[in-house]
Amino acid sequence: MSGRMLVTGGAGCIGSDLATALLDRGCQVTVVDNLSSGKWEHMADLLHRPGFRFIEGDLLDPATLDASLAGVEMVYHLAANPDVKFIPGDPTDKDLQQNTLCTYNVLESMRRHGVRRLAFSSTSAIYGICERQPIAEDQSPHPISLYGATKLSCEAMIGAFQHLFGMDCWIFRFANVVGPKVRKRGRTVIGDFIDKLQRDPTCLQILGDGRQAKSYLLAEECVAAMLFAVERAPRGWNVFNLGCHDSLSVTRIAQMVTAAMGLSGVRYEYTGGEGGWLGDVPRFRLDVAAINRLGWRARYNSEEAVALAIQASLAGSERGHAKSGPWRARADLEVRPTCRL
Amino acid sequence: MSGRMLVTGGAGCIGSDLATALLDRGCQVTVVDNLSSGKWEHMADLLHRPGFRFIEGDLLDPATLDASLAGVEMVYHLAANPDVKFIPGDPTDKDLQQNTLCTYNVLESMRRHGVRRLAFSSTSAIYGICERQPIAEDQSPHPISLYGATKLSCEAMIGAFQHLFGMDCWIFRFANVVGPKVRKRGRTVIGDFIDKLQRDPTCLQILGDGRQAKSYLLAEECVAAMLFAVERAPRGWNVFNLGCHDSLSVTRIAQMVTAAMGLSGVRYEYTGGEGGWLGDVPRFRLDVAAINRLGWRARYNSEEAVALAIQASLAGSERGHAKSGPWRARADLEVRPTCRL
Repeated sequence: MSGRMLVTGGAGCIGSDLATALLDRGCQVTVVDNLSSGKWEHMADLLHRPGFRFIEGDLLDPATLDASLAGVEMVYHLAANPDVKFIPGDPTDKDLQQNTLCTYNVLESMRRHGVRRLAFSSTSAIYGICERQPIAEDQSPHPISLYGATKLSCEAMIGAFQHLFGMDCWIFRFANVVGPKVRKRGRTVIGDFIDKLQRDPTCLQILGDGRQAKSYLLAEECVAAMLFAVERAPRGWNVFNLGCHDSLSVTRIAQMVTAAMGLSGVRYEYTGGEGGWLGDVPRFRLDVAAINRLGWRARYNSEEAVALAIQASLAGSERGHAKSGPWRARADLEVRPTCRL
Repeated sequence: MSGRMLVTGGAGCIGSDLATALLDRGCQVTVVDNLSSGKWEHMADLLHRPGFRFIEGDLLDPATLDASLAGVEMVYHLAANPDVKFIPGDPTDKDLQQNTLCTYNVLESMRRHGVRRLAFSSTSAIYGICERQPIAEDQSPHPISLYGATKLSCEAMIGAFQHLFGMDCWIFRFANVVGPKVRKRGRTVIGDFIDKLQRDPTCLQILGDGRQAKSYLLAEECVAAMLFAVERAPRGWNVFNLGCHDSLSVTRIAQMVTAAMGLSGVRYEYTGGEGGWLGDVPRFRLDVAAINRLGWRARYNSEEAVALAIQASLAGSERGHAKSGPWRARADLEVRPTCRL
């Protein structure tokens, strides 16, 4: 792997780890990010590395795209509205703009610039509520959130461009990705619980009935899996679920956060209902046989990934800031990885 | 069925038949159409019927949508870019604009106006090239055309709105719809062959290798199936393939058109290749068990539907204009329907 890579959304939690990993592999890297959810501080350690370039701009702007794509060999398109949650009263076109339209712009710009290789961060949210579990890549999708729907739209457009214009594409459907950087935004259940318990260590409000159970994956593992697949998978059209084989309940995460913070006797108050919010998929497990067959397997199962993310988040919280650069599981953690090849 | 119905794309071939059928059922009908592919002449017989309203305008324009949705009980959203074919050099965002963005606008406008019932004209093109045939509704889609990709985007957004805002939705995935009105645009294989043979009765250029084989459905049957499903299917989320059970090859259609025009000794020249054009799905048969179970079944198989469409097209061609209003299979046709319940 060499040449110049473009990472859209490269100031985000996963994107900045990916940019670092690509630089570590000897690539030149351009990051484009509008800093709407990505953070300038995630770029701090990258700005002075040779071959790195940062462009602040929005993918809705053609001039930004033209500047970003100059001399690029491959695009890792991670830019997106990261909020899966739809809150009544929010505009309904945020995902359409930041996911569907930005992805079309990336595709069209790639076509015009003759860039033929694209990796895309899709999501398990495209599947919706599935009776058949675990969910394999060939399961018919029925997203129930605007986030999932627009990510499916992106996949569909990428597929058409791939066929019409002869591209090589890798579609990655992520499990819930956790890590210390993610926590900083309060978008994951871990960050939500830590924030609430820091404000009130006696009572924890849990969205839904707590029985929601999902697959979790560390950000560093997510990045490793993407790079592994791009290097090993055949050209053409590739779709992979990225995650581990199991799932973890929200109540169990509450117990883990509570214990990790050294609290006891915390009262759990459930808001009730199957899902935590409108458009939430209450339960899913991913079939990860395809990426396993390629030779990659998550080191940690969901509970281990969440345990590591909790400890890193609490450590970051104590330091008062998130560690920049890719985050590695500390050797002194008490979690014993059991989910191996 | 009563109340006011909105038919978007109601000046199109299928939309105008649908508008007529809804008026015949005692509904009030608003048609909105930008006349980009729909035709003013399709409205001729409707304009003076009581309860009918025509609005010329584009669904990309919010004011048009607001005017169209006033007092509406249900939307039949058929407006779309009807060209499945992508011609190199064409802009790549036509389907994005006319399918994805217009459908989002319809959904958002329905949400704001409190209109909760939506029927949508999707397409078998969302499936792409499938090994497993016939194709059931739960087969994982992988569109290879911009048309198919953006129709899948529409389905996904409709699904999210349905879940988030409690709508009743009917998604209809059409086979290739044929009929005398469709012919007028030269967009179907029938119209293409008639046009070419009228210009040169000795030689017919056939796109692809002629072995492309697809399912065909008469426009009048397509309309009947939609109305049947809306009246009988449960509320909530409904997806139906609409078509017959078999398929018909392009070479066979060439032979049928040639014979119907009284020609013989026509030389067939194939452009070669599996598909007729970029993004063409060369072969598909639809599994129509779901709509059959509901109690509706196409009267004609693919060959019969195409034979009726050829005869009606040639009759229209002799008259020099398309018949307006819904078109009925003539009783004197020699085609014997064999595809019954």
